[in-house]
Amino acid sequence: MHLMRIGASGSEKPVARIDDDTYVDLSDVVGDFDEQFFGSGLLAGLADVVASRVERGRVSTFDGERIGAPIARPHQILCIGLNYRDHAAETGQAVPDEPILFTKSPNTLIGPNDEVRIPRGSTKPDWEVELGIVIGKRISYLDSVEDAKEAIAGFCVVNDVSERAFQLERNGQWSKGKSAETFNPAGPWLVTPDEIPNVLDLGMWLDVSGVRRQTGSTSTMIFDPYFIVHYLSQFMVLEPGDLINTGTPPGVGMGFNPQVWLQPGDVMELGIDRLGSQRQTVIAPR
Amino acid sequence: MHLMRIGASGSEKPVARIDDDTYVDLSDVVGDFDEQFFGSGLLAGLADVVASRVERGRVSTFDGERIGAPIARPHQILCIGLNYRDHAAETGQAVPDEPILFTKSPNTLIGPNDEVRIPRGSTKPDWEVELGIVIGKRISYLDSVEDAKEAIAGFCVVNDVSERAFQLERNGQWSKGKSAETFNPAGPWLVTPDEIPNVLDLGMWLDVSGVRRQTGSTSTMIFDPYFIVHYLSQFMVLEPGDLINTGTPPGVGMGFNPQVWLQPGDVMELGIDRLGSQRQTVIAPR
Repeated sequence: MHLMRIGASGSEKPVARIDDDTYVDLSDVVGDFDEQFFGSGLLAGLADVVASRVERGRVSTFDGERIGAPIARPHQILCIGLNYRDHAAETGQAVPDEPILFTKSPNTLIGPNDEVRIPRGSTKPDWEVELGIVIGKRISYLDSVEDAKEAIAGFCVVNDVSERAFQLERNGQWSKGKSAETFNPAGPWLVTPDEIPNVLDLGMWLDVSGVRRQTGSTSTMIFDPYFIVHYLSQFMVLEPGDLINTGTPPGVGMGFNPQVWLQPGDVMELGIDRLGSQRQTVIAPR
Repeated sequence: MHLMRIGASGSEKPVARIDDDTYVDLSDVVGDFDEQFFGSGLLAGLADVVASRVERGRVSTFDGERIGAPIARPHQILCIGLNYRDHAAETGQAVPDEPILFTKSPNTLIGPNDEVRIPRGSTKPDWEVELGIVIGKRISYLDSVEDAKEAIAGFCVVNDVSERAFQLERNGQWSKGKSAETFNPAGPWLVTPDEIPNVLDLGMWLDVSGVRRQTGSTSTMIFDPYFIVHYLSQFMVLEPGDLINTGTPPGVGMGFNPQVWLQPGDVMELGIDRLGSQRQTVIAPR
């Protein structure tokens, strides 16, 4: 399935995308794609609901609705740092021997095509195309990496927007440069794992105002999604609907010489094979 | 007011404490002390509701109910590191020139007298008595430190339980050692600012199994609560009900020579003037 939330910000309705033109409305059976939904186990039966509705012609036509993030605001957004060998190199940092964890404020989550606002005082706003993992059930101390597969509801594209001066030059701990409003576009879809033959072989790309900046593949991740979920479950309890940003491939603005930063009016376009694409216009501070 | 949540974990009811023996039940007018409540502005009128009920004798008697955290699980738990001069010194780190921000998973929040569980693989579990700030409304880019006063719903005691090996020896970013289940006891009360003549003159203490380990005062904070709220609002949007742990005074286990770590069976007792006290038994990993 390709799950989506469409409609105005704050009142999105949950749907399943059938193709570019049509969707199945699920708002009568699903309150929202949120912690309660993922924790209920209803996701397992949802494909049958969708198939049944398609058979009976209960489909709707997209009519230019805004696309929201494919999940409601999660309990937490966890992020893995320096998880691609080449990206670690371009930022001048060593390849980590175990995952680096940092966090973003959950209210940074926005739709895939919403505007990204540069925060006040920002001098180094930057982009990061990433594979997002959405957790499907409450987990703690998973016994094995294999067990992580059953704990994943799906995958999505995220843009882990970053302010490098806030992140690295304002007294330590990266969260400070990761949590400005609009800093986590996600979507357009939450794609269930059955739709992805090999999550470790997905091409990734990001353009800024028509210039290709990031080109990569999940095949060069240092720690794969199952390792990450198993690993994090040893340090904390993951809740249903939690979002994990798994790190970015080379080509962030910080890695260029000279460095390149986002400017108001820039357009970020990014995508991952099978997971769809995003398009955000960058706007000036409030 | 001294706001509390009493009852079994997950089904606490919101009340106002009148004295050690009696309380006013608010569950018919307040869903919970959560983001929706703080965002509604209802807190401003709650004192009148409580006073009216006391006048009419609508009070209840405490009957040994469990005390929950005084707020429901927040959108985020933000923490300020090294915010007492002497604590920075004992950990061998420089006094920061602006606040250090890190985060805890929101689901670490527990009641003030609940058990604290040592995580699996832990070798250096530690304690931290702290002043907690609860945010009273949605804020972003506060114009002045003075404006922060109106944005604070109240204060509470928190124990920012920490696993120092996870925090400092497992590849950077402190959140990894701050987010294990049960790692954020809070309460017993959320005390509204009108009850506290000077939040910068409150004694603080923490005992482990009867031995006084931390003695301090909010008077030695580097960045005061209003500075912190104003500062954080420049980097992110704070939501109603967000919790900020503002740092710990000297006397954490990491600071002793030799270092002292929590053991199963230890009892942590801690408190802050005017904000009440906590008592947690430390238990072995699951």
